[in-house]
Amino acid sequence: MNRFKKITCSFLSVVLTVVSLHAADTVEQWGVYEVTLKGPTNGNPFLDVRFAAKFAQGYDSIEVPGFYDGDGNYRVRFMPEKQGAWKYETVSGTPELNGKTGEFTVTKPTAGNHGPVHIANTFHFAYADGKPYKQLGTTCYVWTHQPEELQEQTLKTLAASPFNKIRFCVFPKRYTWNTNEPTIYPFEGKPRNFDTARFNPKFFQHFEQRILDLQKLGIEADIILLHPYDDGAWGFDRMTAVEDDRYLRYVVARLAAFRNVWWSLANEYDFMKFKTEDDWERIGQLVSGSDPFHHLLGIHNGKRIFNQTRPWITHASIQNGAAVAEFGRAELYRDAFRKPIVYDEVKYEGDIESRWGQLSAEELVFRFWNATIAGTYCGHGETYKSDDQILWWSKGGVLKGQSPARLAFLKKILDDSPAEGIEPVDKWQDTPIGGKPPEYYLVYLGKQTPTSWEFKLPKPPQGKGQPPADGMKFTAEVLDTWNMTVMPVDGVFTLKKKDNYYHADKDGRSITLPGKPYMAIRIKRVKE
Amino acid sequence: MNRFKKITCSFLSVVLTVVSLHAADTVEQWGVYEVTLKGPTNGNPFLDVRFAAKFAQGYDSIEVPGFYDGDGNYRVRFMPEKQGAWKYETVSGTPELNGKTGEFTVTKPTAGNHGPVHIANTFHFAYADGKPYKQLGTTCYVWTHQPEELQEQTLKTLAASPFNKIRFCVFPKRYTWNTNEPTIYPFEGKPRNFDTARFNPKFFQHFEQRILDLQKLGIEADIILLHPYDDGAWGFDRMTAVEDDRYLRYVVARLAAFRNVWWSLANEYDFMKFKTEDDWERIGQLVSGSDPFHHLLGIHNGKRIFNQTRPWITHASIQNGAAVAEFGRAELYRDAFRKPIVYDEVKYEGDIESRWGQLSAEELVFRFWNATIAGTYCGHGETYKSDDQILWWSKGGVLKGQSPARLAFLKKILDDSPAEGIEPVDKWQDTPIGGKPPEYYLVYLGKQTPTSWEFKLPKPPQGKGQPPADGMKFTAEVLDTWNMTVMPVDGVFTLKKKDNYYHADKDGRSITLPGKPYMAIRIKRVKE
Repeated sequence: MNRFKKITCSFLSVVLTVVSLHAADTVEQWGVYEVTLKGPTNGNPFLDVRFAAKFAQGYDSIEVPGFYDGDGNYRVRFMPEKQGAWKYETVSGTPELNGKTGEFTVTKPTAGNHGPVHIANTFHFAYADGKPYKQLGTTCYVWTHQPEELQEQTLKTLAASPFNKIRFCVFPKRYTWNTNEPTIYPFEGKPRNFDTARFNPKFFQHFEQRILDLQKLGIEADIILLHPYDDGAWGFDRMTAVEDDRYLRYVVARLAAFRNVWWSLANEYDFMKFKTEDDWERIGQLVSGSDPFHHLLGIHNGKRIFNQTRPWITHASIQNGAAVAEFGRAELYRDAFRKPIVYDEVKYEGDIESRWGQLSAEELVFRFWNATIAGTYCGHGETYKSDDQILWWSKGGVLKGQSPARLAFLKKILDDSPAEGIEPVDKWQDTPIGGKPPEYYLVYLGKQTPTSWEFKLPKPPQGKGQPPADGMKFTAEVLDTWNMTVMPVDGVFTLKKKDNYYHADKDGRSITLPGKPYMAIRIKRVKE
Repeated sequence: MNRFKKITCSFLSVVLTVVSLHAADTVEQWGVYEVTLKGPTNGNPFLDVRFAAKFAQGYDSIEVPGFYDGDGNYRVRFMPEKQGAWKYETVSGTPELNGKTGEFTVTKPTAGNHGPVHIANTFHFAYADGKPYKQLGTTCYVWTHQPEELQEQTLKTLAASPFNKIRFCVFPKRYTWNTNEPTIYPFEGKPRNFDTARFNPKFFQHFEQRILDLQKLGIEADIILLHPYDDGAWGFDRMTAVEDDRYLRYVVARLAAFRNVWWSLANEYDFMKFKTEDDWERIGQLVSGSDPFHHLLGIHNGKRIFNQTRPWITHASIQNGAAVAEFGRAELYRDAFRKPIVYDEVKYEGDIESRWGQLSAEELVFRFWNATIAGTYCGHGETYKSDDQILWWSKGGVLKGQSPARLAFLKKILDDSPAEGIEPVDKWQDTPIGGKPPEYYLVYLGKQTPTSWEFKLPKPPQGKGQPPADGMKFTAEVLDTWNMTVMPVDGVFTLKKKDNYYHADKDGRSITLPGKPYMAIRIKRVKE
């Protein structure tokens, strides 16, 4: 009866291999279950044919938009969020695509599949299966637009890196160090003559392949849907609302079933001179409302931060290096927005002339730590000059800087930190301390170079964890965040009330420090 | 026909004296035009009688709610925002209060009357006549609940102070150092037995007198409508929604015609355990929607900042001392909220045990300057221990600290600063500089103790003023913000491009500094 089949064309074999490894009537939880039907090829199938499917399990039902993938293939992709038996029925105004039904079984996820990342504990993230996700992102804006060999190199570099998220654009980029024309475009046509009503399936098939490549590496794909770096070369930054909406619906229909997808409405939205804030509100509602799987959704700013309290924004994707350039700043946006804060751009490790691209590695790592102890997350970027025009920031390739090794060290610290996330302990007072009172504290000393640190723990805000109390015992380690060492401190610290705000070691002991910058202290409660 | 008369009872003679000095058929712009009618005294006039008036000038028409003031007097108060001829007609379900008409003339404002304060240039304030208003506030929470003699002393202290705004509560306060019972309450009844459906006109008549006393001194009255410091003594912190709404409508009807009124929905709204955020949303909409004159409206936080992007909030009234404890923080909330930021509580100069009340005068003044150069505003408070329990913070009286003199110095600097307000010049980069490029710059050096400062001016953000250019000439003055001195620097500085981001003096000159903390440099362009 129904002519659907699970994935036919070559690139999609990867879906089969990576995502399911199951026969067509089973798929793992959070995998991609795809229904493909043959349909009309006349006229403009992208415009003329509506195609969707309803997926149901008991009383749970979800309608998923489909898309035309060229060659008469109409597809709809479903990411099942529950195991067990599911049914579907297609919906279309075109008879041959309408009312087709099927059944399939969703099995438990295979190793390494933890589902999509969602918000957890207001300010943090977790995979759908509950595993904590400690965001440590990087950016290569148009790595998928580079020669295949370079793309493969980027993937190899990412595989060896600590990064678990990468920000990149659907559209190509025209900017300093980015003047190479891509070989393939998302629309039919060519520069200055694109038909935005006809998508280029090959472009998206390739793009999806790269999303899956990242998925294999355990890396989230933070997909930048629109950006201003077009310079009139292609006109993708100045499409009409009708064109934008059609493009966005198509992209969401194609990509939303991939579990590692995040949406970023735009990079530097406020630099897109052809759009108003009302446009972004419309676009935000459209993407949020048309994604059946509710992926994370952000909008990233240039100079003017978007109103991050809008309900369709899941997390604040912020460009502002200054906000993490000092202990006490990063937390302020948590209070303002009450959502996870991801400082996706804090300037770049590099040596280019622009001041946004000439941070030292030390400074970039410092900013990550400032973000961390404030209960927020940070993003890496690299802009070392290169004769071959290949800067990681935009094209990928290899990493040349010194920060990634230190961020790998930070990642180990994060992986060992409380599952619920690191919270500021005393947010407006003793800002260099994050943790989960009274079990875990991370004290960061930044550019200070003390030779000792008095062992004392602040009282957390009311309702934010059990306060320290007399007799509680702790061990401590001194972390050199630059030289990547962990040095246990001898002995156990036992608390005694010091004043209204602090408990200190009962014998007044301090921790000896080497008088160098970028030191931290990790304190854990002794389980008794 | 109509029996209105302008002000009868004794306290309101002040309105006549202060506000208008006119006969009953004229009133100055932004004065109070009051219509009083005699009406029913049976039943509960506060509940039973609806009374309002429509005021009209040509096509402009505004309906103003009235209120019952006891003794059979029904009043409606109008603050005319335009000069010329006005008419009114009363509206009531009670025949004797309905359909009464009259005419009056609104004359130009008298000296010292600049109208109400409104938002100007997104982040700043101005009076209705265009005069800039540079907020320099203080707080005496319950000064109007103290013995009359102490209230008079507070007014005398305020008259000699630099403050142009004071925050205070309608309701009495029960808290440390605040255990004296007030002599009069806003409702009929007594503690644990108030009738919240019957207001006490005498209470409000007195309260209004104090608002007018402040008006005479050129001080804005930031009226805190609700607060949590009740401790069950009176129950004003735990009224039902019906009681709250009735109370708020009554207060707005009584007070909205006084031009120096601001509304603060609450102090530390999040410490009011009997209200939800939905309650605050309802209350905010009610106050905003029932005020015919659109006074400034804020909601002040304890630990949890309200969503300051809500449209009924005119300016962010923030408690967070940490946000002004360092150069680069205060600006962050501007970006987040896109409204004027008033740091109404940044801790207190004082010596009490609680850490919120033991700032040094130096630290408090430092915080004001940090707020200033970031394009935001700050609030003063004082908590010096006192045997007589009279702490300025709560009861008023006399000021004992060293900050007010330095804030008076700051006020002189502000009065001389650009009318449009001081803006951060290079908000995420060179944070210690505020001003109006390229006419005026204020460099604040805070706790740094340099012996010289290289004369160089950053490029402002695109669209934020004309950038510095070669050949522009400037004079400079060194300000000692603690010792309150202004020292002109010899000669004129002439700009020459230094790099992509700065113009410096063409001869590479620096300004000599004394190596002390709390210095600032004021730079003004030479008019040619």
